[in-house]
Amino acid sequence: MQRVRPLPGYLIQRYQGWKATRYKDNQAWYRHLAHEGQHPRAMVICCCDSRVHVTAIFGADQGEFFLHRNIANLVPPFEPDGAQHGTSAAVEYAVTSLKVAHVIVLGHSNCGGVKGCEDMCDGKAPELEDSSSFVGRWMDILRPGYERVKDIKDPETRTRALEKQAVIVSLENLMSFPFVRDAIAEGNLSVHGLWHDIGEGEVEHYSAEADDFVPI
Amino acid sequence: MQRVRPLPGYLIQRYQGWKATRYKDNQAWYRHLAHEGQHPRAMVICCCDSRVHVTAIFGADQGEFFLHRNIANLVPPFEPDGAQHGTSAAVEYAVTSLKVAHVIVLGHSNCGGVKGCEDMCDGKAPELEDSSSFVGRWMDILRPGYERVKDIKDPETRTRALEKQAVIVSLENLMSFPFVRDAIAEGNLSVHGLWHDIGEGEVEHYSAEADDFVPI
Amino acid sequence: MQRVRPLPGYLIQRYQGWKATRYKDNQAWYRHLAHEGQHPRAMVICCCDSRVHVTAIFGADQGEFFLHRNIANLVPPFEPDGAQHGTSAAVEYAVTSLKVAHVIVLGHSNCGGVKGCEDMCDGKAPELEDSSSFVGRWMDILRPGYERVKDIKDPETRTRALEKQAVIVSLENLMSFPFVRDAIAEGNLSVHGLWHDIGEGEVEHYSAEADDFVPI
Amino acid sequence: MQRVRPLPGYLIQRYQGWKATRYKDNQAWYRHLAHEGQHPRAMVICCCDSRVHVTAIFGADQGEFFLHRNIANLVPPFEPDGAQHGTSAAVEYAVTSLKVAHVIVLGHSNCGGVKGCEDMCDGKAPELEDSSSFVGRWMDILRPGYERVKDIKDPETRTRALEKQAVIVSLENLMSFPFVRDAIAEGNLSVHGLWHDIGEGEVEHYSAEADDFVPI
Repeated sequence: MQRVRPLPGYLIQRYQGWKATRYKDNQAWYRHLAHEGQHPRAMVICCCDSRVHVTAIFGADQGEFFLHRNIANLVPPFEPDGAQHGTSAAVEYAVTSLKVAHVIVLGHSNCGGVKGCEDMCDGKAPELEDSSSFVGRWMDILRPGYERVKDIKDPETRTRALEKQAVIVSLENLMSFPFVRDAIAEGNLSVHGLWHDIGEGEVEHYSAEADDFVPI
Repeated sequence: MQRVRPLPGYLIQRYQGWKATRYKDNQAWYRHLAHEGQHPRAMVICCCDSRVHVTAIFGADQGEFFLHRNIANLVPPFEPDGAQHGTSAAVEYAVTSLKVAHVIVLGHSNCGGVKGCEDMCDGKAPELEDSSSFVGRWMDILRPGYERVKDIKDPETRTRALEKQAVIVSLENLMSFPFVRDAIAEGNLSVHGLWHDIGEGEVEHYSAEADDFVPI
Repeated sequence: MQRVRPLPGYLIQRYQGWKATRYKDNQAWYRHLAHEGQHPRAMVICCCDSRVHVTAIFGADQGEFFLHRNIANLVPPFEPDGAQHGTSAAVEYAVTSLKVAHVIVLGHSNCGGVKGCEDMCDGKAPELEDSSSFVGRWMDILRPGYERVKDIKDPETRTRALEKQAVIVSLENLMSFPFVRDAIAEGNLSVHGLWHDIGEGEVEHYSAEADDFVPI
Repeated sequence: MQRVRPLPGYLIQRYQGWKATRYKDNQAWYRHLAHEGQHPRAMVICCCDSRVHVTAIFGADQGEFFLHRNIANLVPPFEPDGAQHGTSAAVEYAVTSLKVAHVIVLGHSNCGGVKGCEDMCDGKAPELEDSSSFVGRWMDILRPGYERVKDIKDPETRTRALEKQAVIVSLENLMSFPFVRDAIAEGNLSVHGLWHDIGEGEVEHYSAEADDFVPI
């Protein structure tokens, strides 16, 4: 593959710095993880967005979080049709092989994927409605959430509500996986929904009592 | 959703610690990112594995890497069939909306997904061959890589070769996306393949000259 | 000592978070504790096991529990032979200097030390019988407990019974310390035995009436 | 054992509160830990002192730290004489069975055990010199540290220096265990020394470069 390029120098330099410092300081733990395997306590499903640093926010070390990141932190419904479902594969591996104790869906403010979905459902982004738009088809998962918030008048409030729907719809879809339902029923798994305000650093969590997000 | 639980207390405490220190110290930058949007320089595609800390290895700050994480860091082939393709959506968003300058595929040692693929192709994991196995169907993406390494005699060498094939097959599939090919041809995008040894902290990159992975 | 390494960065970050939140919120109490000395109400003797969080289970604050943790929560018999007895020193300090009102021995399920003792006594762990095995010699303390449960047929029941013997033998040995006996006789000390099921969150306590463990 | 008493009611109440809240919220993780075993990343050796809350300071969750606590966080020298050495047993179990990546010795300010040692070595605590004093014989481990600081004039400075010697002597003694030395040499273990100021919330770590404690 002639078009594959060497890594930019500044990334090589940073890697070398990491190797000489953080890796060296934690070499024993890295080797332990390599030899003994991973035993993460939680799976976190969050957005690819470059502004979401879940390991920093929760002080997580190597080996602690099994991390799946996709556009808008979405989980599709259970659909065992033999096609390729990367998110469903990640959930299946975490719950049935790694037997994680927690699945945390972490949404966030200012989400480009959620905004795209809103525009598409509003009829303002015809390019996303095209069957060949991967982003559009992926954001279809959030359409049931759009239906619930579409009548909100204030634009900012509506967008924020849709960002939180991205978490709620994903939690609902998670529950459609038989192995997730079983693990919850057996007391071996709990699921959690969070929404993170990037600019203000706040985190809210979905409360079953309130049936809404509340500050933690 | 009655079955959604509040966040464990130790994560709340750690979050509060982050809020009072790292967030507080960087509030201006977080607010800038929230108001001005993200402008990541690179997309990184890596595994969900809890032992892979790509932001640590490359000293990445908030806003720097658009991060997609799935099982075994795989990119499927270009298939605009109207179905949901989370990885393809992430690539499309990064290249066409965010216009990242780099796409980096980062593989790693001791990968459970790759091992599962090897076992499945060897006929040792019939449960993964079932059409309802999300992990099995997802790992089908790596079958062309298995074909290339299956005759390697030494088991450890073969597994390692297959881990690197997970990067190579993904790079090949990346090239099947027209908007990726176009961005490369216009000089607006470069793609890179890396493989990371978790225990030893080494990173190798795919060299087009050598047509193989070489230490960086 | 060239081989001593700096603390891993994630622990430093978490510490800084603690300092900025929980420490700051409780600074007055920490300073009080530093200046006025500790006045714990109880000594707890529990296992080193990472899954036993005694301060969480009993909602203990800074300054409340004098905590000794060793393998399998064992107290050796009173043996004032001039050699180093770390556990006996801790008991002596708690009872005669701090004059704690309670000594609580807390055993637990899934104890690796107890299982090692059972295997050793069953003749299945010759490496633990070696005179140079610190774990083996330490677990010798539990041999009288093994004698009492060895005829139990069901393996799981036997292991659980031996875990509870680790508490009973320790309580018996505690009573062999003259200063413990005296403090109890004077009404200044009471001793308690608990066994904790890690997976189910249950706690049982030794009841003198039942001469057995009963749920609390 | 007629003299064993039921647990005080306030502890039962707190336990029941924990069971209904923190346990319930984390049940899945507790069960995971019970069924899959512990995989702690670090062993921490700290004092029994009720004011030292190591899990709080470092935001540690269940399963993270293998915790040995004794008077003055001391490790005795390697002495495989067939006698009972609880601390050596804990170190052996952590390093050879659990294969922890880190051993952290955490000393602290205002340590009663260290003060007792200082008084004893100064000839001011004859009761601790008695061969039947468990605390006195245990604190003998720190005598080499006393020798190094005894000429310091200012009493407060001298006591603080001796508290830090409790960490240094323990690190030196740790290095006398062949399995510790081997694990370090193979890159599978690193050891760390910390000293914690209870009143001010500060933590210093032993720096090999400085051959002294420095703030973190």
